[in-house]
Amino acid sequence: MLLSNIAQHLKLQFIGKDLEVDSMNELALSLPTQLTFAINKKYSQELEISKSKAFLIMDALIENLPKDSSYIVCPDVSISMAQVTKLFNKRPVEPQLPPPSIGDNSIIDTMARVENGTWIGSNVIIMAGAYIGTNCVVGDDTIIYPNVTIYRDSVIGKECIIHSGTVIGADGFGFSHTKDGEHIKIYQNGNVIIEDFVEIGANCAIDRAVFNSTIIRRGTKLDNFIHIAHNCDIGEHCIFVAQTGVGGSTKLGRNCVVSGQSAFSDHLTIAPFSTFSARSGVTKSIEKSGGVYSGFPLMNHREWKRLQVRIAKLND
Amino acid sequence: MLLSNIAQHLKLQFIGKDLEVDSMNELALSLPTQLTFAINKKYSQELEISKSKAFLIMDALIENLPKDSSYIVCPDVSISMAQVTKLFNKRPVEPQLPPPSIGDNSIIDTMARVENGTWIGSNVIIMAGAYIGTNCVVGDDTIIYPNVTIYRDSVIGKECIIHSGTVIGADGFGFSHTKDGEHIKIYQNGNVIIEDFVEIGANCAIDRAVFNSTIIRRGTKLDNFIHIAHNCDIGEHCIFVAQTGVGGSTKLGRNCVVSGQSAFSDHLTIAPFSTFSARSGVTKSIEKSGGVYSGFPLMNHREWKRLQVRIAKLND
Amino acid sequence: MLLSNIAQHLKLQFIGKDLEVDSMNELALSLPTQLTFAINKKYSQELEISKSKAFLIMDALIENLPKDSSYIVCPDVSISMAQVTKLFNKRPVEPQLPPPSIGDNSIIDTMARVENGTWIGSNVIIMAGAYIGTNCVVGDDTIIYPNVTIYRDSVIGKECIIHSGTVIGADGFGFSHTKDGEHIKIYQNGNVIIEDFVEIGANCAIDRAVFNSTIIRRGTKLDNFIHIAHNCDIGEHCIFVAQTGVGGSTKLGRNCVVSGQSAFSDHLTIAPFSTFSARSGVTKSIEKSGGVYSGFPLMNHREWKRLQVRIAKLND
Repeated sequence: MLLSNIAQHLKLQFIGKDLEVDSMNELALSLPTQLTFAINKKYSQELEISKSKAFLIMDALIENLPKDSSYIVCPDVSISMAQVTKLFNKRPVEPQLPPPSIGDNSIIDTMARVENGTWIGSNVIIMAGAYIGTNCVVGDDTIIYPNVTIYRDSVIGKECIIHSGTVIGADGFGFSHTKDGEHIKIYQNGNVIIEDFVEIGANCAIDRAVFNSTIIRRGTKLDNFIHIAHNCDIGEHCIFVAQTGVGGSTKLGRNCVVSGQSAFSDHLTIAPFSTFSARSGVTKSIEKSGGVYSGFPLMNHREWKRLQVRIAKLND
Repeated sequence: MLLSNIAQHLKLQFIGKDLEVDSMNELALSLPTQLTFAINKKYSQELEISKSKAFLIMDALIENLPKDSSYIVCPDVSISMAQVTKLFNKRPVEPQLPPPSIGDNSIIDTMARVENGTWIGSNVIIMAGAYIGTNCVVGDDTIIYPNVTIYRDSVIGKECIIHSGTVIGADGFGFSHTKDGEHIKIYQNGNVIIEDFVEIGANCAIDRAVFNSTIIRRGTKLDNFIHIAHNCDIGEHCIFVAQTGVGGSTKLGRNCVVSGQSAFSDHLTIAPFSTFSARSGVTKSIEKSGGVYSGFPLMNHREWKRLQVRIAKLND
Repeated sequence: MLLSNIAQHLKLQFIGKDLEVDSMNELALSLPTQLTFAINKKYSQELEISKSKAFLIMDALIENLPKDSSYIVCPDVSISMAQVTKLFNKRPVEPQLPPPSIGDNSIIDTMARVENGTWIGSNVIIMAGAYIGTNCVVGDDTIIYPNVTIYRDSVIGKECIIHSGTVIGADGFGFSHTKDGEHIKIYQNGNVIIEDFVEIGANCAIDRAVFNSTIIRRGTKLDNFIHIAHNCDIGEHCIFVAQTGVGGSTKLGRNCVVSGQSAFSDHLTIAPFSTFSARSGVTKSIEKSGGVYSGFPLMNHREWKRLQVRIAKLND
């Protein structure tokens, strides 16, 4: 898409050489072919070293742009960014793509749907009512139970088990907010990657990334009702017990164990081998690996147990 | 339905002129053509000014009935009311109705089901595995992702996005309880109305009203796993983060922001522009708009933060 | 299956007479035809009185085996047990079984799937997108709403109502853990039994048992988003409000009332007529019936209310 066309859509002017951009990305990760954006002044330094050549930018940051940048000056970068994500959003189905490729010995139920452009490995079982969207990959020996939904562009590894009612790749929850209190959708143009040997229980929801990928790494096991928001990166061999939620862009190291009804805020980094007891509410990153935590606000598990005793004594 | 037939079904006597009633409603909202009921003495005043002409009533409230009322005296009004809701319950499907009306450029997947009596606007996309029940309305430019279920009589506005696994219009959770500890279903004969520009994440559940409507107003956005119970009224441009639940008949004003894993009791009224941090547990109505709250029991967010510091000090 | 074949699969030696075993079970419940296992020394006494004749056993427990036992000595019984569950796991579909038996006046939507080997009673309604697996039973007058998934071997009683998005019989969440931190699936070879007059709300998940059955007893009513883990036994006429979870093997007596967002740990026994207010976190068994509880850690409801007042005073 030409930057000039994007400017036209926004009814804003672009400055610099007209450029073709193939997608969008956040500032720190954007490539030379991607359109990026700087929403406020705290991004000034990141901006200076960006590899991108095309920007949505506020007036006050123009001087921080890399040399020879092309850019659109936006009165509200957050709103403009949301509007442009819509331009890059793909259609939900693309019937013009080639029919799906199905590996040896795979069984696709006649009441399941596999959309065009998708690649299914061998010995895969896809049961009645399951939906596998456009341009997905499903690895060998994976089983998709009835009424699972996998949105377009998702990648599912080998020997995975996905239980019924689970939704992989629905839109992450992202909006820009107008001064009138309306919410402008940030289209979620990334995808979900589920690595090999992952099991996902019934009625989970793993949201697609806004840009790039939400990742569940090799060997991780999710119980029922697990919510994984957009752009999370869940390490290898983690265990999530039922009704737990992880906020957007949060990253867990390998072999974390998360007990039931726990929750993580967004944008955290959690050290590997961390253990969280039931209903942990994690709002800060954890740097040291191997800890055991409880409570909300979160604390050391031992400390939490002692604290509960002290709290109970208030009733004496 | 004739009041005499209802009395017959209940094996109870009716007193007064026999009347045709077309539906049921709660006392405060019931129209002259509706059957209503007064379960206990605290409804005596509401009863006196009721517009209804037909009542299920306890003996002790007969004297409070409006003049010329027709009524059935019930030894347990709550149980009788539940039994009568069954008489007014519609069949889950009505194939005798005319085939659905589908607007221009709308795409209904061959593996989706749209039941008879339903009206679909233009540019609507209904994907594989989606179910749209009898007598529904789906507005223009709305997208219904795979494996969404929309029960009969639901109304979905324009430019809505409903993600996979979401269930709209399932029965609200209502029962009358016998002295033996059994639960008699109160059939949920109302519906759900989703206004324009609403987005609903994956695996949500918005229950149909017992009478009248559960409403999600214009521009509101729900993340995944949101539970909205029967007869809720969720104001315009609200934001609900994942795994939050709202109890029956609770009403939120516009632009409320509710963070993850929060919950609201039933029958509350929440002022507009209220903000709730993660895991808020709201058990009382809020009259003043613009507040920020936390905790369970709920308190001012600042107070809650200060309190957490004090609680932690108990461990010193 | 011959014990010698199982030993071969595990690449371990078996000692004693070769035996045919038809399934697996935990030590306390295992029958003479079942293979059982003792994972650590605390099972030594249970082992001595076991009715089983075939065992997976650690070296240190051999002396506690009943006379004339056949056994496989395992360096890690937990891992071996998980590996053997896979041998007993049934295929997800068995098309070679006879077509389903459908009772009088039952309506199976053309877009629903009922697998072979299943028995459907009379006056049953199974709506579009519902999936009923192999070897299930669905009792008379039950309604299965669209997009419900019922896994193989499940038993659903009479006059049940199962709302959309609910998943019955997905695998319980059970793994054995290697020293390298990998999780070996314990295949869930039991089933789910839903007794008569049960109503289950939208988007619930009732997991199948690892061995034997997960049971929801007569007249119990579940709201939306209820998680019932493997091997639970939920008593008659219980009420579960939305977003509540019950851990594995926990047993509730009749007429318990559980308010929203509550949770129970695994392996508890809860006395009948217990009431739990919203967000109760139950981590210990309850012996005395009729109590009312709140909080996490759980306490008497009155005590909890008093404690909240005292906690709030810390801010004075």
